[in-house]
Amino acid sequence: MTRDQCVQLDEQDALRTYREEFDLQQGLIYLDGNSLGPLPHRVRKRVADVVEAQWGKSLIRGWNEGWIDLPRQVGEKIAPLIGAGPGQVICCDSVSVNVFKLLAAALQLRPGRSVIVSEQNNFPTDLYMAQGLAGLLGEGRCQLREVTTDTLADNLDESTAVLMLTPVNFRTGECHDMAPLVQAAHKAGALVLLDLSHSAGAMPVVLDAANIDMAVGCGYKYLNGGPGAPAFVYLAQRHHERVRQPLQGWMGHQSPFEFETGYAAGPGVSQFLAGTPAILSMSALDAALDIWQDIDMQAVREKSLALSQCFITLAASAPALASLTLVSPAEPSARGSQVCFSHPMGYAMVQALIRREVLADFRAPNILRFGLAPLYTRFVDIWDAVDALRDIVGSGEYLKPTYLQSAHLQSQHQQSKHQQRNTVT
Amino acid sequence: MTRDQCVQLDEQDALRTYREEFDLQQGLIYLDGNSLGPLPHRVRKRVADVVEAQWGKSLIRGWNEGWIDLPRQVGEKIAPLIGAGPGQVICCDSVSVNVFKLLAAALQLRPGRSVIVSEQNNFPTDLYMAQGLAGLLGEGRCQLREVTTDTLADNLDESTAVLMLTPVNFRTGECHDMAPLVQAAHKAGALVLLDLSHSAGAMPVVLDAANIDMAVGCGYKYLNGGPGAPAFVYLAQRHHERVRQPLQGWMGHQSPFEFETGYAAGPGVSQFLAGTPAILSMSALDAALDIWQDIDMQAVREKSLALSQCFITLAASAPALASLTLVSPAEPSARGSQVCFSHPMGYAMVQALIRREVLADFRAPNILRFGLAPLYTRFVDIWDAVDALRDIVGSGEYLKPTYLQSAHLQSQHQQSKHQQRNTVT
Repeated sequence: MTRDQCVQLDEQDALRTYREEFDLQQGLIYLDGNSLGPLPHRVRKRVADVVEAQWGKSLIRGWNEGWIDLPRQVGEKIAPLIGAGPGQVICCDSVSVNVFKLLAAALQLRPGRSVIVSEQNNFPTDLYMAQGLAGLLGEGRCQLREVTTDTLADNLDESTAVLMLTPVNFRTGECHDMAPLVQAAHKAGALVLLDLSHSAGAMPVVLDAANIDMAVGCGYKYLNGGPGAPAFVYLAQRHHERVRQPLQGWMGHQSPFEFETGYAAGPGVSQFLAGTPAILSMSALDAALDIWQDIDMQAVREKSLALSQCFITLAASAPALASLTLVSPAEPSARGSQVCFSHPMGYAMVQALIRREVLADFRAPNILRFGLAPLYTRFVDIWDAVDALRDIVGSGEYLKPTYLQSAHLQSQHQQSKHQQRNTVT
Repeated sequence: MTRDQCVQLDEQDALRTYREEFDLQQGLIYLDGNSLGPLPHRVRKRVADVVEAQWGKSLIRGWNEGWIDLPRQVGEKIAPLIGAGPGQVICCDSVSVNVFKLLAAALQLRPGRSVIVSEQNNFPTDLYMAQGLAGLLGEGRCQLREVTTDTLADNLDESTAVLMLTPVNFRTGECHDMAPLVQAAHKAGALVLLDLSHSAGAMPVVLDAANIDMAVGCGYKYLNGGPGAPAFVYLAQRHHERVRQPLQGWMGHQSPFEFETGYAAGPGVSQFLAGTPAILSMSALDAALDIWQDIDMQAVREKSLALSQCFITLAASAPALASLTLVSPAEPSARGSQVCFSHPMGYAMVQALIRREVLADFRAPNILRFGLAPLYTRFVDIWDAVDALRDIVGSGEYLKPTYLQSAHLQSQHQQSKHQQRNTVT
């Protein structure tokens, strides 16, 4: 595949005009939208309006002029992207805090069951929050069972309250085959909690149709809500009547401005709102979500897979890159919207790429991660990125003292952490 | 006291130049800074920079260029305003979520004790979060004892894990005489958790010197951080080594980017950071805090009391306002930075004031609340506000159908809530 062919693919791309929605500098190749989406032009306008007109001029009246509805409004904009009918999604807090709320809610919805089953290689914050809840409640009431991916189904039984999974692995981009796992969880009487951080906005998600019970997701990756944009909570309608969650803040109360002394949960998913929402950050996400209005998620998925296939094919055909191991699935249907390789010197290679304005991620211990966002990633970006990587590896550029030193520091750091862990445990 | 005298007081005011820091429209009288501080000019610039240069141009590199340090940096800027030495304050999440973390931490620091003592008329979200924690842990491990203010000390005993108080009452502005309560709590072996939402930036607070154990506070009231600005956590140094809190997010991990599967709490107060911080909102607060650099909190307190005394004196000398009852303490030392009156038609009166661009708050069931922010509130604002209120009440303007209707709706709503409550309980 030549660079010209990639240019041609871009010209034929049905999603190509969406790139104009974003502020992307000439010459920059941004393959890190799964860590932080770029700035949409419409967000720039919206934030200025929130600061100048809403906060600056309306002041406290801003709450009556729209702020109070934002969490629900943003939730409803996210809903179609994740296959959720109305009234089941709300925007609030962070993924971490929302995981805690939902895990506690799962235990309450499944009395007598104490086990959270998850994968060892789930995104760490999901595991940490489960560990925190287990530590708070004690082993008799809550335990986290961290197992390998292939033994997930075997670990579901009558003690399982909830199966907590991230459908797309953050390191490798590998997708779970969800349907059998959901079926197994439900058969065991357990609920299913999904972390959609690497799915929402990257591929079609069908929460209602897949009979998912609860989900969280991230606002600052594929949804382009800005650094630290608030997260979201999905709770299936069938659980609304019975559910309770412990982070009972005044904004989740059924009438916050009555200032009653006793908590009375707001209806449905609204009780998952806890404290006062961060309006500047949430408004940015609200504006960014308008980009998705007419987008067909199936088209997004098709382009995503074409992009990752292009990356894999180009890398495989470069002899200089033979020392890199593809860790993302070769099978397209099992692949999220990223391509990952491992290499012992991966850290130095990513630093060298960044120096050339090819922004990618390193993920400990040895992963080079390239995120693909079909709304703005071009085929020509893939060609140029692989070309840069080929040059960096082939020429030994990544062995320059500056990258080696940073790689050495990184490796030392890893080692010392490892020793520390061994000392502690 | 004449309007001219108020103009003179403003001319002599040592803090008068700080008003220029804020975007306050001509003709608007803003007495609601204890709900939402106005827009500081420097925040406008900072937010534009965060959006354009940091997010827009640095993209993911923004994390290495300052974002990752923001929670600690903002905490250190708040610390001197609340009498906290370095390393004890961090900016994160909302007041509500932070109350939950600290209450759980208090139970962990006081094993064998299960009772949270607080006031019935504390700010509701603090009570709701305690109720949520109690519901989650069960009565044997956590109970909230909500008592009247005068029986607080009597309710502290060997079962008390923590005394949770808001030093300034949100409805009346009444200040606790904290020293004897702190002494009584510590004598009983309990910790003290303060909610500084109506204190930080309004008056001197001396957490270290007063031997306070833990505190939360709000970024969007007197600190002017914008709608829904993130909150803060204070934890006294002496508890750092032993403390654990259950909302264990990756940003509170000692090395978040190692992506270890086991949680290891970051040092000191940093473990109270849970998920990814909302950078736009936190940056706004960071910029707003720079205003305080050279401000003497004693001068703030003196002006605050002079403002509230002016309000009380003017209102007392207006025969038209005889039907309003002062509910804030007449004794200055017992008064926060607000003046409150009760009146059965308070809701309609506040609506009429707002119509005249005098922004104040109504607090259910019958409170007119006027917040005083010494950095920008002028004596002439007080004069004009009392004058407007006098005119509205004296002329019966608040009895206009539009205000009456809204007051009627408000009262109906209160009544129906009341009935609902009676039905439920």
